[in-house]
Amino acid sequence: MLEFIDLGKKISKSDYAAVMDGLEARLGECQRAAQEAGVPVVLVFEGWDAAGKGEAINRLAQVLDPRGFRVNVVLTPNEEERYRPWMWRFWNELPPAGKFALFDHSWYSRVLRERLGDEVSESACREAYEEIRQFERQLADFGAVLVKFWLHIDRKEQKKRFRALEKDPATAWRVGESEWQQNQRYDVWRTAAEEMLEETSAGHSPWVIVEATQRKFVEVKVVETVVVAVEKAILRRASAPKPVYAPMPKPQESPTHEKTVLDRFDLGLTIDREDYERRLGELQERLFRLEHELYVARIPAVIVYEGWDAAGKGGNIKRLTRGLDPRGYEVIPVGPPNEEEKLRPYLWRFWRSLPKAGHIAIFDRSWYGRVLVERVEGYCTEEEWRRAYREITEFERQLADFGTVLVKFWLQIDPEEQLRRFQAREEIPQKKWKITTDDWRNREKWDQYRVSVVDMLQRTSTTHAPWTVLEANDKLYARIKALRTVAEALERAIAGRGTPTA
Amino acid sequence: MLEFIDLGKKISKSDYAAVMDGLEARLGECQRAAQEAGVPVVLVFEGWDAAGKGEAINRLAQVLDPRGFRVNVVLTPNEEERYRPWMWRFWNELPPAGKFALFDHSWYSRVLRERLGDEVSESACREAYEEIRQFERQLADFGAVLVKFWLHIDRKEQKKRFRALEKDPATAWRVGESEWQQNQRYDVWRTAAEEMLEETSAGHSPWVIVEATQRKFVEVKVVETVVVAVEKAILRRASAPKPVYAPMPKPQESPTHEKTVLDRFDLGLTIDREDYERRLGELQERLFRLEHELYVARIPAVIVYEGWDAAGKGGNIKRLTRGLDPRGYEVIPVGPPNEEEKLRPYLWRFWRSLPKAGHIAIFDRSWYGRVLVERVEGYCTEEEWRRAYREITEFERQLADFGTVLVKFWLQIDPEEQLRRFQAREEIPQKKWKITTDDWRNREKWDQYRVSVVDMLQRTSTTHAPWTVLEANDKLYARIKALRTVAEALERAIAGRGTPTA
Repeated sequence: MLEFIDLGKKISKSDYAAVMDGLEARLGECQRAAQEAGVPVVLVFEGWDAAGKGEAINRLAQVLDPRGFRVNVVLTPNEEERYRPWMWRFWNELPPAGKFALFDHSWYSRVLRERLGDEVSESACREAYEEIRQFERQLADFGAVLVKFWLHIDRKEQKKRFRALEKDPATAWRVGESEWQQNQRYDVWRTAAEEMLEETSAGHSPWVIVEATQRKFVEVKVVETVVVAVEKAILRRASAPKPVYAPMPKPQESPTHEKTVLDRFDLGLTIDREDYERRLGELQERLFRLEHELYVARIPAVIVYEGWDAAGKGGNIKRLTRGLDPRGYEVIPVGPPNEEEKLRPYLWRFWRSLPKAGHIAIFDRSWYGRVLVERVEGYCTEEEWRRAYREITEFERQLADFGTVLVKFWLQIDPEEQLRRFQAREEIPQKKWKITTDDWRNREKWDQYRVSVVDMLQRTSTTHAPWTVLEANDKLYARIKALRTVAEALERAIAGRGTPTA
Repeated sequence: MLEFIDLGKKISKSDYAAVMDGLEARLGECQRAAQEAGVPVVLVFEGWDAAGKGEAINRLAQVLDPRGFRVNVVLTPNEEERYRPWMWRFWNELPPAGKFALFDHSWYSRVLRERLGDEVSESACREAYEEIRQFERQLADFGAVLVKFWLHIDRKEQKKRFRALEKDPATAWRVGESEWQQNQRYDVWRTAAEEMLEETSAGHSPWVIVEATQRKFVEVKVVETVVVAVEKAILRRASAPKPVYAPMPKPQESPTHEKTVLDRFDLGLTIDREDYERRLGELQERLFRLEHELYVARIPAVIVYEGWDAAGKGGNIKRLTRGLDPRGYEVIPVGPPNEEEKLRPYLWRFWRSLPKAGHIAIFDRSWYGRVLVERVEGYCTEEEWRRAYREITEFERQLADFGTVLVKFWLQIDPEEQLRRFQAREEIPQKKWKITTDDWRNREKWDQYRVSVVDMLQRTSTTHAPWTVLEANDKLYARIKALRTVAEALERAIAGRGTPTA
């Protein structure tokens, strides 16, 4: 790819002056239009050391309204970051809709600097390409403009620049051992860069190679590219059909979906109180021990609770955490997305709340809201919830690849049991707050939820993140099964890691 | 995934009768509507042996108009097929727009039967998943409806069926060693099937798992799923915006693209006639020898010629083939797609003309027409030519992974040289047929072509399929460089294969 880059490209002083004014005006206009249309703009700057990334970013920054952009300088990951899946820190830095984010280095460090520094194996590098493609596709599907610049110079030019930088005491610090190493290993870097360009070019996230021998040329090409990309996106947005938000209709009747797999679970399963108390105590002790081992082995765990209204999620979570050291876990209740969250791709808030390695995050409701309540109520478009199955399995796969223990519970009760619990709640004064008109309304949509739940179980129960259905007509039974499932999953992970147990 | 499949699902005789009539009527309607809208429908049947794939296909076939569908039974690849990249035979079998293709087994055999039979390594299996995803995405982008059925039964049920089949002399032949082996290794197959479902599920090509314990249930679910999928696609097609076919405008003036990488090639390079004759003879002899070695080593080669009008493609190809044994190569001239080709995804006709391993295919113009003439003239939509860069690199990657030698030439001349040649052609009676008004018209679009050529070179020159630019103002020079490039590429491939040379 890089052999067809003409590094002799230059632009005259007069041409520069002639076009730059116009481009600056258009860029300003772009920023206002992107803000108004709610289009996030993500610009990635990669390239050779001393190729002029900083200068290109500065040039953009001079023109952009500073309230509307942020520059993210990507350095070696710090401890907080190393204890999370590696894409975590980039998810964290996503701009809200309407804003610009400029990345000085980026997620591509993983397949360049870290890979060539032997910190990332070949197979981890393949995995990284795949995760990058997933990330960028999710951004594009959300409507972001994504442009990636590769600033290209040849080996001689780089050497010349290093020398010049070294001569000036004010800039000598910019050239160290690692910079000279890149120059010495120019061909190795070049091969890796070409592979990267090939593996991660896509229509929705193109690489733009910038002939970076002359600074003026770089400035014009970068600003011009950004302007054209944003203008196009704004036009496309304006002519796109309006999204349709429609509640799910009652499922068509068909003998093929009269019964579902949910009907196969035996809701008559129970446990007697005495047995329950004994087992609960044992399990809580076991979990306390495991929580510590998990911490020592630096394994993160994510536990998801989903289920019918009044199925007993809260009480179940309470029993799970009661014996745990509160420094080691966090319960994350999930409601409708807030304003800030709505300005980002759907999974953003869940990425942000991922536990540090060694810690446990317990989600009371979760990202599955997208394919449950949002689907049923029409809070998202059909395209969005359909896409979500894939986005979710990709998300969980990335967590699993990082070594995360994933346990997902669906608390299953039947409609009769739900009715009994709703009525009981209304009758008992101290429980009355727990029941709202929403609950009664959801209940009327039982059939829609049933279809959504079955679709969810079938499409998102994967080998790395399986669902466990808890037969929850008997709350006690469901609690014991949940705690046992968590304990076993943690034990498997710890044994797999080969960490000595206490 | 499969743990949430309810294998107890059944349907009563009366329900069956009640719904099947309606479904049959709708399916007939679907077929007519798909024909009218030009939507191709691809249905894949995979699943356990004796799960009822044949019966399900038969049931559909009873309802469909036989002029509008074809059943493809996928067996072990034959010799013709083994000598081509493995997806070749499936590309060959793609239905034209408006028709149905039913696959009894499919490209998934590679990641199931062949993999479990140890004919496909783990890494080849990963590669196959990727190639399957590429194939199915290309089909979906073309507008095809793609539904994949997995007919699921449990181990016990399969055993029961095998026993029943064995008892009846008319069906005993259906159960052999390989069937019993699947039953004995049910868990291994199940794990592979689950991985396959996870790796290849996408919104545009969903897997539908069919609870296949009861035949009536299978029939209703299969017909119902097909009907719903086709009805949806027809509706979507009807409400989609009309595609825009617009010729490429003259490129905006900007100092960043005044000059291109094409200007860096030294068109003053020449070779004198005597030197030319001597080298040509040597190269032709060398190529003759290599053609034979290629055949022995069973390496396929694909050579692509693209270039400006009158740049000398024809004469160059003539010199390349003159010394070769005509049984070992084929020249494939590429013009506008014909009617049959327009009914398939763009790359279909190129897949069909791939050479057998050991043979050489020389394309006089090629799949690059999509991003050259079709882009410039607006014969395809912007979305289509943009998508093509990726489709083409994926295509060439699959060829390279199969071991194909890929050589791609761009014949570069300058506008002045082209003018001289056009004029000469008009003046010489026996060359006059070579020049048409089209050529003069194309010449006026030089700037548009220039941008398209540079985009093409930069986006599709990959490590596995690089472009070579031939400085072709001197035809003799271009010929020698072309023949030498081909010879060197063939030598590298043969040396890499470690085949003893003669």
